[in-house]
Amino acid sequence: MATPSPLAPRQIPTLPPIAGVSLAGVECGIRYRGRRDLMVAVLAPKTTVAGVFTRSLTAGAPVEWCRDALKRGKARAIVVNSGNANVFTGRAGREVVATTAKTVAGTLGCHPREVFIASTGVIGEPPPAAKIVSALAPALGTVSPGGWDAAAQAIMTTDTFPKVATRQTAIDGVPVTISGFAKGSGMIAPDMATMLAFLFTDAAIPAPLLQAMLKSANDRSFNSITVDGDTSTSDTVLFCATQQAKHKRVSRLDGRLAEFRRALDAVMIDLAQQVVRDGEGAEKFVTIEVTGAASAQSARRIGLAVGNSPLVKTALAAGDANWGRIVMAVGKAGEKAERDKLAISVGGVAIAAKGGPVPGYDEAPVAKHMAGREIVIAIDLGIGNGRATIWTCDLTHRYIDINGSYRS
Amino acid sequence: MATPSPLAPRQIPTLPPIAGVSLAGVECGIRYRGRRDLMVAVLAPKTTVAGVFTRSLTAGAPVEWCRDALKRGKARAIVVNSGNANVFTGRAGREVVATTAKTVAGTLGCHPREVFIASTGVIGEPPPAAKIVSALAPALGTVSPGGWDAAAQAIMTTDTFPKVATRQTAIDGVPVTISGFAKGSGMIAPDMATMLAFLFTDAAIPAPLLQAMLKSANDRSFNSITVDGDTSTSDTVLFCATQQAKHKRVSRLDGRLAEFRRALDAVMIDLAQQVVRDGEGAEKFVTIEVTGAASAQSARRIGLAVGNSPLVKTALAAGDANWGRIVMAVGKAGEKAERDKLAISVGGVAIAAKGGPVPGYDEAPVAKHMAGREIVIAIDLGIGNGRATIWTCDLTHRYIDINGSYRS
Repeated sequence: MATPSPLAPRQIPTLPPIAGVSLAGVECGIRYRGRRDLMVAVLAPKTTVAGVFTRSLTAGAPVEWCRDALKRGKARAIVVNSGNANVFTGRAGREVVATTAKTVAGTLGCHPREVFIASTGVIGEPPPAAKIVSALAPALGTVSPGGWDAAAQAIMTTDTFPKVATRQTAIDGVPVTISGFAKGSGMIAPDMATMLAFLFTDAAIPAPLLQAMLKSANDRSFNSITVDGDTSTSDTVLFCATQQAKHKRVSRLDGRLAEFRRALDAVMIDLAQQVVRDGEGAEKFVTIEVTGAASAQSARRIGLAVGNSPLVKTALAAGDANWGRIVMAVGKAGEKAERDKLAISVGGVAIAAKGGPVPGYDEAPVAKHMAGREIVIAIDLGIGNGRATIWTCDLTHRYIDINGSYRS
Repeated sequence: MATPSPLAPRQIPTLPPIAGVSLAGVECGIRYRGRRDLMVAVLAPKTTVAGVFTRSLTAGAPVEWCRDALKRGKARAIVVNSGNANVFTGRAGREVVATTAKTVAGTLGCHPREVFIASTGVIGEPPPAAKIVSALAPALGTVSPGGWDAAAQAIMTTDTFPKVATRQTAIDGVPVTISGFAKGSGMIAPDMATMLAFLFTDAAIPAPLLQAMLKSANDRSFNSITVDGDTSTSDTVLFCATQQAKHKRVSRLDGRLAEFRRALDAVMIDLAQQVVRDGEGAEKFVTIEVTGAASAQSARRIGLAVGNSPLVKTALAAGDANWGRIVMAVGKAGEKAERDKLAISVGGVAIAAKGGPVPGYDEAPVAKHMAGREIVIAIDLGIGNGRATIWTCDLTHRYIDINGSYRS
């Protein structure tokens, strides 16, 4: 494994067991040697599931399978391999997905459409069906409630550290847990860096509510990060609720779920930020706070335009307080903006407002802030109440090294 | 000036005089020492003008001025400075534009709104009004029909070579000339790399027709190139027709203009390709041919998604025939596409089709093609008749060096 990113968290938390979830991560030799590359999670009967997927029109066979399976709203297992993305692999790709689901369903005694599948790795190479299928039985035989670490490691590709997060919360005062793990080191880089995340809770929540909460939290977390603006063919986020907690069943999105939803946001934002912290070549973690936009969606698009701009990202890498590039990126977002109402600050120091530089602006404290590992850019559009926070990283030479050479 | 790009044209043509056009490029010391940085073009009375501008919502004061002036459809002069973009400069920025126009109009005896202005350089620094205004008289005093070289040099910033192009054509058999020059070394990088282009012809064409032809040719040329996908606050293309040629006046876009329009396309595509060839850090010139798309616009958007993808561009830099990234970029374009109808070839070699790799695909000839300076990627969507050609360059370490350090 590569040297951990300089932005990696100091400590990796140990995830507690969640009633109804057993996991394993095993080696099946798809691409790597001496590394776990197959993850299996087995879920208690009646587990409900929600999912969000890439919007790519060239999505892989596993994404197609999951989209279809999600209609049933039930999950008994998740199978994920790393090393091969099973994208643009034609009929062979669809067959390995179907065979995997059928094999697992046979063992667990469930419907194949209750088995969810994700793959991450190289595009366009036929997946090694025999290796994957023959590793399923040993993997299913070793799942345990303490298998979180092995599972989180097995889904990694170019990641430099495993990404896990957990929160204790409650519904009606009854304790419930939300835990998850993710992989990805471009938001959305294909090949080896596709983003995947798997979330689990013991809460008793029906699938439609789970889906609504996941979609909403996803906008504030995984849809609010960017490393390079490229969109994966495999992005998958699944959220499973094992129904084991003893609170009364919930039937709508009301105040009873407020605390739970805050915890879900926290877990997902934690994981999303870890993906950025492992961004390919990242040296700086950048928070972009957009306020005063025409709408929340508009604020998010403006933040992403700034976060995706190669010119902003190279200036960030150089620690250059080049705010003209932020003005440029706001202007190109295609969202409602008025030059003469725009205000920009970096590290809490007001730089530009009312169509020009702030009188007496002193670059020294901003340059000092920009030299650090954590950078905060605040952009106020001055035209509405829409707000959003985006997280990104800088664009460095290492990004080019990683992406210009890993395959060859 | 920096070492010329390895993709620079072997020879820079000498532009012939165009009746009604006189130019000068002088030094006024805005930012550079020992370099021309103020361009003035004086145009015969009755010259018509067309223009297209950045769609940025944070456009600079000169762009606002030109948009307004364009309503009259007449131009007697163009003034361009390099070194300062006059963007996000508040009232001071608007004043220097108005003063420049008034000064030139006073000398030429025309309306200030017949003076067009563009600026390129750093954003957010107040333009040096006194330096610019005091250089206008000497510049206007030295304009000549042979001033093309000096003019093309005076608008350069980080450009490594001046970009000029010319074509002889005819209307009703009467010879007319179209010439132009451009600057820019990011499609649209701000700061020092904003794109500007100025086109001139002696043809007798009214402003509305000129505008329609410019807009159409612009889509196939400057709107079909990308270096980094960033959008300048200052992009400006002006097209002036001095009405000096002796053909009968044209009054509509019909067959009489077909040859002229082909020549305009040729001049603009030539200049646009030169901008890409001077792309910041560019080592490879890449042509992306998109066919079989739902529409021409859809084809252009797909081509730009591929051309803007950092993952495609880093693979190009490495000479890596990583076609999976092309599949990914097509998928993220948000345009109509069907994975199983998509076909991709590089350097004329079919790589992928019908949802998977082409049987027996041999990477060797593709790798050889990718090692060269000029790369051709062909993408067929297989769903319609829309087609477009996009030109771009690779993403190299030098891009990061240039954009991470020039300002500090």
